[in-house]
Amino acid sequence: MHIRDLSTLALIIDAAAFDSNLATMASALPGAALRPHVKAHKCTSLAAAQAGIGHRSFTCATPREVVGMAAAGLGTDLLLANETIDPTRLTVLAAAQDLAAITIAVDSVETLAAARTAGIRRVLIDVNVGLPRCGCAPADAGRLADQARTAGIEVRGVMGYEGHLMMVADRAEKQAKVDAAMALLLAAHADVGGEIVSAGGTGTYDLHTVGTDAVTEIQAGSYALMDTQYSTLGLPFAPACFVVGTIISVGSKHAVADVGLKSLGMDHGNPALAVRTSLNDEGTPADVWFCSDEHITFGTSAGVSVGGRVFVTPAHIDPTMAMHDTAWVGRGDEVVDRWPIDLRGW
Amino acid sequence: MHIRDLSTLALIIDAAAFDSNLATMASALPGAALRPHVKAHKCTSLAAAQAGIGHRSFTCATPREVVGMAAAGLGTDLLLANETIDPTRLTVLAAAQDLAAITIAVDSVETLAAARTAGIRRVLIDVNVGLPRCGCAPADAGRLADQARTAGIEVRGVMGYEGHLMMVADRAEKQAKVDAAMALLLAAHADVGGEIVSAGGTGTYDLHTVGTDAVTEIQAGSYALMDTQYSTLGLPFAPACFVVGTIISVGSKHAVADVGLKSLGMDHGNPALAVRTSLNDEGTPADVWFCSDEHITFGTSAGVSVGGRVFVTPAHIDPTMAMHDTAWVGRGDEVVDRWPIDLRGW
Repeated sequence: MHIRDLSTLALIIDAAAFDSNLATMASALPGAALRPHVKAHKCTSLAAAQAGIGHRSFTCATPREVVGMAAAGLGTDLLLANETIDPTRLTVLAAAQDLAAITIAVDSVETLAAARTAGIRRVLIDVNVGLPRCGCAPADAGRLADQARTAGIEVRGVMGYEGHLMMVADRAEKQAKVDAAMALLLAAHADVGGEIVSAGGTGTYDLHTVGTDAVTEIQAGSYALMDTQYSTLGLPFAPACFVVGTIISVGSKHAVADVGLKSLGMDHGNPALAVRTSLNDEGTPADVWFCSDEHITFGTSAGVSVGGRVFVTPAHIDPTMAMHDTAWVGRGDEVVDRWPIDLRGW
Repeated sequence: MHIRDLSTLALIIDAAAFDSNLATMASALPGAALRPHVKAHKCTSLAAAQAGIGHRSFTCATPREVVGMAAAGLGTDLLLANETIDPTRLTVLAAAQDLAAITIAVDSVETLAAARTAGIRRVLIDVNVGLPRCGCAPADAGRLADQARTAGIEVRGVMGYEGHLMMVADRAEKQAKVDAAMALLLAAHADVGGEIVSAGGTGTYDLHTVGTDAVTEIQAGSYALMDTQYSTLGLPFAPACFVVGTIISVGSKHAVADVGLKSLGMDHGNPALAVRTSLNDEGTPADVWFCSDEHITFGTSAGVSVGGRVFVTPAHIDPTMAMHDTAWVGRGDEVVDRWPIDLRGW
């Protein structure tokens, strides 16, 4: 099938850009130095490609992602880098421990107690390194680890996500801030012990020294498909995911395609758009005026007509993937594969 | 089951508020004067409640919604108030005409030709009344209707959505602008003919005179469940939909619940949040700091602890519903029903 034959809207992955992104990252952070984050794509077929290039340990954000990865045979080393105290979901996670190696994050006596009650065997201490979200205070990490070990639970180490630093523009400033955040994490690790010190994301993947007495792995996810926000950072990863639409109406100054905000993560603002028919051509960028539920209105340019195609680049890839049930994989003009986005939900 | 027993996150509809919203609207716009918009909820069970109170004609935004409503036995009079030229989806719509009465919007010779090729039997002319989106120029509507009739297609009338006026704050200004937009639509209708003049939305539902020689029906959808944006207008509809979450982490100044932006339409900004355990209590509002993929961070107040519950009110209901596969229906403390959100996708 050709890309021009896809019914729209349709989410498409550019296989060439995707392969390049995976190779670039695997060169910088080979094997276990990267623990790819599944929340960025929610797709076991895509995760299988990441495993194929050498990354066998994965980061997940939801119980559903962990259980789905385990069922897909990708359970060598799954980390739920998130807290839950839901007994139903913890019980499902505990049952999946017979299929896969599962570690979950805890940051409080309550989350530890819930994990223990459900029969979770391995945890990691989530440490707050500056982002106001989950994570215990660094000084509390050692005590929580002791409590876990007393309860018979293996403590594999620490994690600390410096999410507040991903978009810092100045590289020297960003490096200094990442170093300061990691000093907090390493101090906590000295109290906690264990073989894992997990941190980082696509925006800081090259600002960590991965190794002994340092961060042992990076949790990047967005690098594989990218989005317009991460593209502002000048990283060596190319946009590899688009929502393909059809122009359904053309006015005197604007045109409308059938790609609306129900198919696009909007928390980082409007997407980018180009009038474009295949992955081979660059297309012609157009100004996005606004997105509605089912429409994107953009400024017209020469060559815009009803039935033409647009490629929309999401501003934020993670929620965009979560809105689609299928990712088509394209190479040039051809559709070469169809990947179910099979880890949606909670 | 009690609401406190729901695994979170969970989308819940407050049955009392929902029933009240439906009754209020049915009193203002009874029966066929309202053509409820299915895009606001994507749920045939909810649509069945709208049919039960007397509205038997529905507005849809996607072919999937039309076909799903027809399959659910809700096909008395379905309007696809949107353009498509996709031959696959038009063919599916055409086949559904044997199950249901289906009318689709056209606004150009191209969309009309595509409808004709697929075997669509009834259309309505979509007229641009000021919103820069779909719709032909008012002066072109009559010619397009003539072309449709020449092709053997029934033309049922016109529609024109004044979406750019929904949030105008001053009521007199809004009335004047709605009147001007409807003058354009009625002029087009004089050229087109047919029994339908369809317009409006929740933000303008009470600014139209519905009747002969005027708008014949209003396409409101958000009124049934509401959201924080529409709640700013002082309409007689109450928030009836929440995403229930659990507090999973508490810091010194902030707390975190497991309701993230993958479960919330974010195009209208952050949601509202209250620390709250049931539909019976008002709860305690808290300041939302920011939303991440799987988390909402909010300012702490007294009584916030790990395991507590929050109710999150979406800023925009339509995309929120599209992110969930299940709507729980609650009354007070009890979960009384479970509605599949079965019209997702395109």
